[in-house]
Amino acid sequence: MSAASSQAAKPLIRMNAFAMQSPVHQSPGLWRHPHDRSLAYNTLDYWIALAKTLERGLVDALFIADSLEFNDIYGGNTDAALRHAAQVPKHDPLMSISAMAAVTEHLGFGVTSNANHEPPYPFARRMSTLDHLTGGRIGWNVVTGYSKSSARALGQSGVIAHDDRYDIADEYMELVYKLWEGSWQDGAAVRDRSSGVFALPEKVRRIVHEGRHFKVDAIHLAEPSPQRTPLLFQAGSSSRGKVFAGKHAECVYVSGPSTAVIAPVVASTRAQAVRAGRRAEDILFFAMATIIVGHTAAEARAKLADYEQYVSTDAALALFSGWTGIDFSRLDPDEPIRHLKIEDGIRSALENFTTSDPGRIWTVGELARHNSIGGRGPVFVGSPAQVADEMEAWVDATGIDGFNLSYAITPQAYEDFADLVVPELQRRGRYKREYAPGTLREKLFPQTGAFLPDRHTGAAFRFAE
Amino acid sequence: MSAASSQAAKPLIRMNAFAMQSPVHQSPGLWRHPHDRSLAYNTLDYWIALAKTLERGLVDALFIADSLEFNDIYGGNTDAALRHAAQVPKHDPLMSISAMAAVTEHLGFGVTSNANHEPPYPFARRMSTLDHLTGGRIGWNVVTGYSKSSARALGQSGVIAHDDRYDIADEYMELVYKLWEGSWQDGAAVRDRSSGVFALPEKVRRIVHEGRHFKVDAIHLAEPSPQRTPLLFQAGSSSRGKVFAGKHAECVYVSGPSTAVIAPVVASTRAQAVRAGRRAEDILFFAMATIIVGHTAAEARAKLADYEQYVSTDAALALFSGWTGIDFSRLDPDEPIRHLKIEDGIRSALENFTTSDPGRIWTVGELARHNSIGGRGPVFVGSPAQVADEMEAWVDATGIDGFNLSYAITPQAYEDFADLVVPELQRRGRYKREYAPGTLREKLFPQTGAFLPDRHTGAAFRFAE
Repeated sequence: MSAASSQAAKPLIRMNAFAMQSPVHQSPGLWRHPHDRSLAYNTLDYWIALAKTLERGLVDALFIADSLEFNDIYGGNTDAALRHAAQVPKHDPLMSISAMAAVTEHLGFGVTSNANHEPPYPFARRMSTLDHLTGGRIGWNVVTGYSKSSARALGQSGVIAHDDRYDIADEYMELVYKLWEGSWQDGAAVRDRSSGVFALPEKVRRIVHEGRHFKVDAIHLAEPSPQRTPLLFQAGSSSRGKVFAGKHAECVYVSGPSTAVIAPVVASTRAQAVRAGRRAEDILFFAMATIIVGHTAAEARAKLADYEQYVSTDAALALFSGWTGIDFSRLDPDEPIRHLKIEDGIRSALENFTTSDPGRIWTVGELARHNSIGGRGPVFVGSPAQVADEMEAWVDATGIDGFNLSYAITPQAYEDFADLVVPELQRRGRYKREYAPGTLREKLFPQTGAFLPDRHTGAAFRFAE
Repeated sequence: MSAASSQAAKPLIRMNAFAMQSPVHQSPGLWRHPHDRSLAYNTLDYWIALAKTLERGLVDALFIADSLEFNDIYGGNTDAALRHAAQVPKHDPLMSISAMAAVTEHLGFGVTSNANHEPPYPFARRMSTLDHLTGGRIGWNVVTGYSKSSARALGQSGVIAHDDRYDIADEYMELVYKLWEGSWQDGAAVRDRSSGVFALPEKVRRIVHEGRHFKVDAIHLAEPSPQRTPLLFQAGSSSRGKVFAGKHAECVYVSGPSTAVIAPVVASTRAQAVRAGRRAEDILFFAMATIIVGHTAAEARAKLADYEQYVSTDAALALFSGWTGIDFSRLDPDEPIRHLKIEDGIRSALENFTTSDPGRIWTVGELARHNSIGGRGPVFVGSPAQVADEMEAWVDATGIDGFNLSYAITPQAYEDFADLVVPELQRRGRYKREYAPGTLREKLFPQTGAFLPDRHTGAAFRFAE
């Protein structure tokens, strides 16, 4: 290795902001904090101000999680979820995008939509519409999950088996690639006033798809959008989920309490990308993290102590029940986890939440509360320099490309990030000083161009003469 | 009748603006006009500017038509539709609403969504989300239609029989009423920081619906929005369609070439409302119309002559084929309609388009071109006073409440309306001088309140103790 390359600048740290259109996302109870604005989740003012703040902080994208799930594991009903707004109510994230796009120029939007919930033809049109309206700044977080509650909401007889879901999702992807990539050839929409020709019919073709799960016979109703296929996000960490991500995802969200949990997920998903004919660096990884920063370490610690007063154990247990599938209402919150009489599978799920401090004996309540400041990821607390140190250390230890920034209270978490952390990271050469030009895909993959790279699975569905 | 009541002010004329997210809506060929901005249909700038113009003109609502149909009747393929952008491409109207809502305070939005295309549970959440984000300014144009092309796009085996569609739609309505009206009781969302209670679980109930066509077992995922049920628009004019409108619709769109065609549709639909336990005045009727106005009559006539140069007969025939189901490519455009060897049903469909001038012998091409300035409705051409005269005469002769304003070129049609027609109508006391306060429902029905009136079908599904 030459001296020049060994001294090459370390890569920029990428940032997404992590939200949900609910009064509670990952910090149960914190909506009660006097400075928190989560209750305004159902207003345009909130989302418009947030988008402006994120663009001020040069954040790459706002990622909005979503599901049709209503948490009814804890106590066997929705009472606790409703009382604490534990991801209930939860509004449709797509509806606010255009308002945020109108007040920003560069911020991307990663919106969640479930391939098992929405019919593919109108969904493909919806994403194309958003890609047009945002000028190519839309990303799709492909979700395939099926909770019991969302299955019932959709009138489905039951939850589809895990691997079947991915098979269905693979076919769904094939179909939407055909619509996005294969129906309108480049240059089909000539939009020529003088000749009176809007589109050249010979450059638009009908997609005829008859698969096991879906059937379509139609042209795509949207003309080609800036990115065609929206930037593809994914978050599965099971074996099958990693195969799916390796094939389709351009950005992957990971979450875990320690670098030791995250690093192998990153490595094995990159290996799946290579197996799918792509390159390891074709996927960017974002780890969920929360930043509590002050001008000094003491100020940050005081903020954390203030926030912790608002954590609600009951709300935390309700949310934690939803994530793990365990009804924690039936367990003593003061019981150490290791003493619980529970199945091995459940115990290992819980251990996944505890490995940030393996020697410690956790009680049920402590574990739930521990994940109540920003969810299942690290909390970086300190001065700007300390936070930047921790961020760099995480990136170096895991191979991630950046973070998916959760919050204790909003929008202060994002204001603090923009005001305090960004200048520090910039000083270190680890953060951009301005956005790259172009679409969301071009901003995140400057070498790729606006469309899917040729080696991506979806490129095979391009219009061929 | 007392002297006072006989001299009572005539009612205000209501206005909607009629659009589609396509380069061509009702005026095929006009996108080529140098002042027309239709090609910007896929940009936020266009919709944001339009929304501001409409609010300046005190227009009640922007009504956005939509379907998943791609016109493939003319010539048996989509070539002409693509070449002329004859309602192809067509983007999703819901995606732009929040951007328009953010720059307006009062303008309503009537968005089209098909009860046979979208699963009810996520659809109900989508509309609730929009009602929240717009502060109660959302309307839903309930569509039940099924073209052959949209059926194929959705992978359906065929078009559902007309009356069956309405039966399915009735069940769909029942289900979304249950979600909007019946899942969260008034006052359920207390949002109380001090007690830490977001919602009172005993005031939220699970909707269990097991019908012939739909099945849901879930709480509504959105907390009650300003209107709960969005203001309901409908446009069916068949017998079954009028029964449906009489039961559900709060605003009805009608279209026809003459007051003689419109008046009986209005009267019979109002009768259906009364039959459904409502009042005749519980439905507002909007007739499709186009206004071409100048400072003088001569200026207006010159505008019309200018616009007519841009009508494309081929595009008009393609669009007309889509509306009527007749492949006009196989007919000589110079052939008089009355000489055509066509089925009686088709001939009567065509006659529906020609009765504005019953004595005239129409050719195929003339008929298509005749409907190419703003579609199948009157074109009011003249000075502000002449246009206002015609508008008043139409209202008086038909019992409609206002107009659904189509355009020859956009946004000029709406700028001209705001600048020239509004002041004239205001001078006559036939147009509001400011918006009424409150939600879209309250603005259009000042006596009703934000929610469905008690006598509306949907009110029966309210949360009962």
